Amino acid sequence: MSPWAHDDFCALTTPEARADLAGRQLAALAERETIVRAFAASDTEAARRRVAELPPGPLGGALIGVKDIIATAAFLTCYGSSNPAVAGPRVDAWCVSEAQRLGGVILGKTVCTEFAYPLPGPTTNPHDRLRSPGGSSSGSAAAVAAGFVTFALGTQTAGSTIRPASYCGVTGFKPSYGLLHIDGVQAISSTCDHIGIFARSPRDAWYFVSAMISSQAETIAPRRPARVLRLRLPAEIPQADGYPVHMNALSEALRQAGVAVTTIDLPFPVEDFRGLQQDLCYWEAARILLAPGGEHLVPELRALLEPYLEVDLSAYAPARRRRQAYQAQFETLATGYDAVLLPAATGIAPPLASTGDAIMSRFWTALHVPAITVPMWRSAEGMPLGLQLLGRLGEDRALVEVAEWLYRLT
Amino acid sequence: MSPWAHDDFCALTTPEARADLAGRQLAALAERETIVRAFAASDTEAARRRVAELPPGPLGGALIGVKDIIATAAFLTCYGSSNPAVAGPRVDAWCVSEAQRLGGVILGKTVCTEFAYPLPGPTTNPHDRLRSPGGSSSGSAAAVAAGFVTFALGTQTAGSTIRPASYCGVTGFKPSYGLLHIDGVQAISSTCDHIGIFARSPRDAWYFVSAMISSQAETIAPRRPARVLRLRLPAEIPQADGYPVHMNALSEALRQAGVAVTTIDLPFPVEDFRGLQQDLCYWEAARILLAPGGEHLVPELRALLEPYLEVDLSAYAPARRRRQAYQAQFETLATGYDAVLLPAATGIAPPLASTGDAIMSRFWTALHVPAITVPMWRSAEGMPLGLQLLGRLGEDRALVEVAEWLYRLT
Repeated sequence: MSPWAHDDFCALTTPEARADLAGRQLAALAERETIVRAFAASDTEAARRRVAELPPGPLGGALIGVKDIIATAAFLTCYGSSNPAVAGPRVDAWCVSEAQRLGGVILGKTVCTEFAYPLPGPTTNPHDRLRSPGGSSSGSAAAVAAGFVTFALGTQTAGSTIRPASYCGVTGFKPSYGLLHIDGVQAISSTCDHIGIFARSPRDAWYFVSAMISSQAETIAPRRPARVLRLRLPAEIPQADGYPVHMNALSEALRQAGVAVTTIDLPFPVEDFRGLQQDLCYWEAARILLAPGGEHLVPELRALLEPYLEVDLSAYAPARRRRQAYQAQFETLATGYDAVLLPAATGIAPPLASTGDAIMSRFWTALHVPAITVPMWRSAEGMPLGLQLLGRLGEDRALVEVAEWLYRLT
Repeated sequence: MSPWAHDDFCALTTPEARADLAGRQLAALAERETIVRAFAASDTEAARRRVAELPPGPLGGALIGVKDIIATAAFLTCYGSSNPAVAGPRVDAWCVSEAQRLGGVILGKTVCTEFAYPLPGPTTNPHDRLRSPGGSSSGSAAAVAAGFVTFALGTQTAGSTIRPASYCGVTGFKPSYGLLHIDGVQAISSTCDHIGIFARSPRDAWYFVSAMISSQAETIAPRRPARVLRLRLPAEIPQADGYPVHMNALSEALRQAGVAVTTIDLPFPVEDFRGLQQDLCYWEAARILLAPGGEHLVPELRALLEPYLEVDLSAYAPARRRRQAYQAQFETLATGYDAVLLPAATGIAPPLASTGDAIMSRFWTALHVPAITVPMWRSAEGMPLGLQLLGRLGEDRALVEVAEWLYRLT
């Protein structure tokens, strides 16, 4: 029996129902973790004891996985590195501290690729052990998909929440920049780093996020959008495994459901859609990760970043200003629509040797707008394919309400 | 003899000249620190020993003060609190680690107001012991002004670098958002926190900043601007102690020097000029500072922030979008000008009971653009008054070159 035979977590109103769910999740972990390998470290017995105490709060008893670039007091933080000299401080990051304040139970640290660079870690995709869960929040996406935890904390600097959620068939939500405080997370980029949340459904994701930023956890209702904007991507952007067909069929289904669907070609230069986030992130990451203490970086990442130390401010600054112009342009574009729609990935999860391509997310991450993956389709092989929804800056709740409606549509 | 009888630090080319400067700075500290009270903690002997080793690097032997909300391994970080339960991690913040990599010598932790809230600390203004050095980077500004250190690290979330620099008659530079990585600094606002630098001259400030973000420390030449934009502020914004007269005289002097000066009225709504940064910062700070661990906050700050926990995302989000629109508007406004000019404070340093008004900086801090205080004038009492220059996002070097020219003009 799937641990998810139950309803969403936010619909479990009694401590006993939550403890029951946690028990089944721990059973699933015992059964499948040797194959999925979602966790870098975990403490099943401590989690079991904590759940048995029926902790109060909106997340009371919810099992949570924490990406291993997010600091925790209870577990060593290793940034996906096997080098024992690399270890973060034994403190709780802001998001971890909040999760625990709300009654959440940290089961362990989920695998991330080393310093979030796309070299695969040991985690496998719960839908196919020969495929990648995506990265860099590999273990967080897999742990939710495998039913080991109710929620997982991840991050997104390029596409590390949206893409693995798509590959693993779960909800991945990256709120607006700064909405969830990044303190306690290993920095990569000073202007692109975001916290991401993995959950079963959009409403569960919002239940968690809203509890962190407001005085109560909100259980939202699905909201049918009046108008959506579909972005048609140029041929240079790969869209495999039936994505174009699914996107067309979705447009038709939406129209039949009374939603006005406007389709336009991507109105941003494809070079910046591909490269803007990298121009920003790599320049910033070189200064952060190659600073003293960065001697333990994986050589591939060091080799990638070192040339950016030589990139002058005068080459970086225009990228900052282009970002600013695109932010204003996106705001104008998205005004009047309930969501902007495009694929969450370029196709299904690739074989284990790669963590996949972040191209569907990079640009939007740089723009700071909220993004969410809704698990929508299956490929011919039975692998998940996700839909990505983008919203206006700060309109996170409205976006998740629409995502929840689309989630229930499937 | 002033420790600044010497030239700028960037012009001191021999280790001996730098060691000589440090010796005179330590003598000034011994003589005046009991009055100025710039430091929360310092280790004069350790600094003296380190300087004597003639550390290599562009900052080799430069004495540096570090604001006490920036973490250091060598000194406890107390966030301006007298509560012994409040203490930060014993690690070096990114900027501290960089300063030391470059050969800088951390003399100690400079006084900040408690959690950067405007309740005055013990520091006095080196120009008048009955007046405030400003806040919240009080000790950093005073330590540079008193000639105790060559550089000081501070922060700016509202006006905590630009204003104290003006009050203390030194250069205060707040680079573009994200240019200097904020890691290791006590967070207040997830979208407004910046690192700030105090130095004697603009070129010294850039010497330090450029060494952190490029492969070498740059000694810039003064650059005469071709065109500047002067912002005339509405009558609701206080401008005392001769500021309007000085700004008029400066315009005239600039014209005589061949600079085209365009003067316009503030083109942003005065409510947002006053309040936008507060709407953003307090909403974010409530979620960060009132989280677990925030029990030790000064009651005034707690009382200020608690109501913001009840402010819904739907009230915060529009402020985020207005900020984005103003960023685009400022970029358009500033394009074609070498700098935007306005006062750095509302007047001279107030008496010790207040740290002064951040109104001249708040809005620009929220907009993320680079800002610099150039010490320009003296009031009738002999107190410093600073000019504020703003630049386009990322055009930090160009802005400092112009600031350096204005600094040499005086």
